[in-house]
Amino acid sequence: MIKNKLLHHILQKQSFLCIGLDTDIKKIPPHLLKGRDPVFAFNQAIIDATQAYCVAYKPNLAFYECLGVKGQIALEKTVAYIRRNYPEQLIIADAKRGDIGNTSEMYARAVFESADFDAVTVAPYMGEDSVKPFLVYPDKWVILLALTSNKGSQDFQLMTDAAGERLFEKVLKKSQEWASDEQMMYVVGATQGKMLEDIRRIVPNHFLLVPGVGAQGGSLEEVARYGLNSQCGLLVNSSRQIIYADPTERFAEAAANEAQKIQQEMAKYLLWIPGGK
Amino acid sequence: MIKNKLLHHILQKQSFLCIGLDTDIKKIPPHLLKGRDPVFAFNQAIIDATQAYCVAYKPNLAFYECLGVKGQIALEKTVAYIRRNYPEQLIIADAKRGDIGNTSEMYARAVFESADFDAVTVAPYMGEDSVKPFLVYPDKWVILLALTSNKGSQDFQLMTDAAGERLFEKVLKKSQEWASDEQMMYVVGATQGKMLEDIRRIVPNHFLLVPGVGAQGGSLEEVARYGLNSQCGLLVNSSRQIIYADPTERFAEAAANEAQKIQQEMAKYLLWIPGGK
Repeated sequence: MIKNKLLHHILQKQSFLCIGLDTDIKKIPPHLLKGRDPVFAFNQAIIDATQAYCVAYKPNLAFYECLGVKGQIALEKTVAYIRRNYPEQLIIADAKRGDIGNTSEMYARAVFESADFDAVTVAPYMGEDSVKPFLVYPDKWVILLALTSNKGSQDFQLMTDAAGERLFEKVLKKSQEWASDEQMMYVVGATQGKMLEDIRRIVPNHFLLVPGVGAQGGSLEEVARYGLNSQCGLLVNSSRQIIYADPTERFAEAAANEAQKIQQEMAKYLLWIPGGK
Repeated sequence: MIKNKLLHHILQKQSFLCIGLDTDIKKIPPHLLKGRDPVFAFNQAIIDATQAYCVAYKPNLAFYECLGVKGQIALEKTVAYIRRNYPEQLIIADAKRGDIGNTSEMYARAVFESADFDAVTVAPYMGEDSVKPFLVYPDKWVILLALTSNKGSQDFQLMTDAAGERLFEKVLKKSQEWASDEQMMYVVGATQGKMLEDIRRIVPNHFLLVPGVGAQGGSLEEVARYGLNSQCGLLVNSSRQIIYADPTERFAEAAANEAQKIQQEMAKYLLWIPGGK
């Protein structure tokens, strides 16, 4: 159900772009700093300017937490603003949470009840009972970390067992016992584009959230070539490249231009899937 | 330096107890709910009543996040209260954070600058650059997840490579390249007491934070037998067993009794280490 809705939205917008709201108070244009809530003002302008070109927004919770109570307020206002004005947008809490059952339950309540996110990124290290409490919400997504885009992904995620299976592959396989592709997506780092072929063999039908296009250096074409499936199956995130495209009062216009450029490239790749036009 | 200070505090209190402040608004005594900030009022009473018997407090961030802005306020007040009144107590943010470098940097700022925690629990899945930003604070601790106490710990943490090394052992070994035992501790689940022997071979000198004694079912004696080293090297956490010992107006007194019982048992085990009396 929610997967169909997402696909519909993607085809309508001709975009599978997710915009990361990694809003750093130290990087937003100086003229906004005079206002009462510069972080929210920045987000609001970015959202209004870019919403035509994307299908999801992904506030990165760390950037709000580091501001304490003020950050929490800005975050809640941002989520409510998107929900009210652009209800078709998927709102992802980039949180990388995961703890024992009774604690993950509270994290789930934080993102799905206290705030009204549609999806949350979850870390797999603590296993099944750390992930399941996020899955009791039938219309919400869990986006599980599989293979990340950073250098440190090589430290443990590529660990290989005697049968040749890597840790991130185990995560992809095991977690399919916990939920279907209607409730679970995976984070897959784009800087390792050919890995997507291996990954698509294990999770042919799932949506993948691909960070790392843009500032983190992945190629969108490569991601599309190896990652698209018949239901699109991709959300590609860009944060800094879009939201910090221009450091002046023209930041929102510049963000819109960047987002539109990516959307136009995505529209070409969507032609590769059935019904993509 | 901070390790010596911690040992000194342990010997002084004759305790290596950490009290988890997993304060659930649904479980606190009803008479507190009339107040302006029931969560903080509960914590304050628990802290005043138990501080003589423990060396650390560990607010579990999930329980505050699920209350949104109000929870953030209660959390900040709790940290400030401990800092002001019991400056010798170690304050641990149980957060299980971990993300790409620029994001972990913001999480580190959240717990070490915006709030004034002494330590934070960090998840290892994303590797070195996800952990390092927490290590740039010279007088703060990183407590890395190694082997957790929940059932799901078996899903991935026990994965074994061709040479017979398990994932949690890799985490213990690899992470020693990132920081010394003066800056890093490890989370090691107590429900698997004999595993502590293997773990002590890899990290003989580190402090271990052991959750899961009490409600999660581990035996304190077993943990002490396999886990103590010549500088104590243990912080043993108990949350629910202490803070929810009594559901009435006598909750704080009951919590003190529970904490004292554990402290008295710990004092016996401290006799096993040099200078432990």
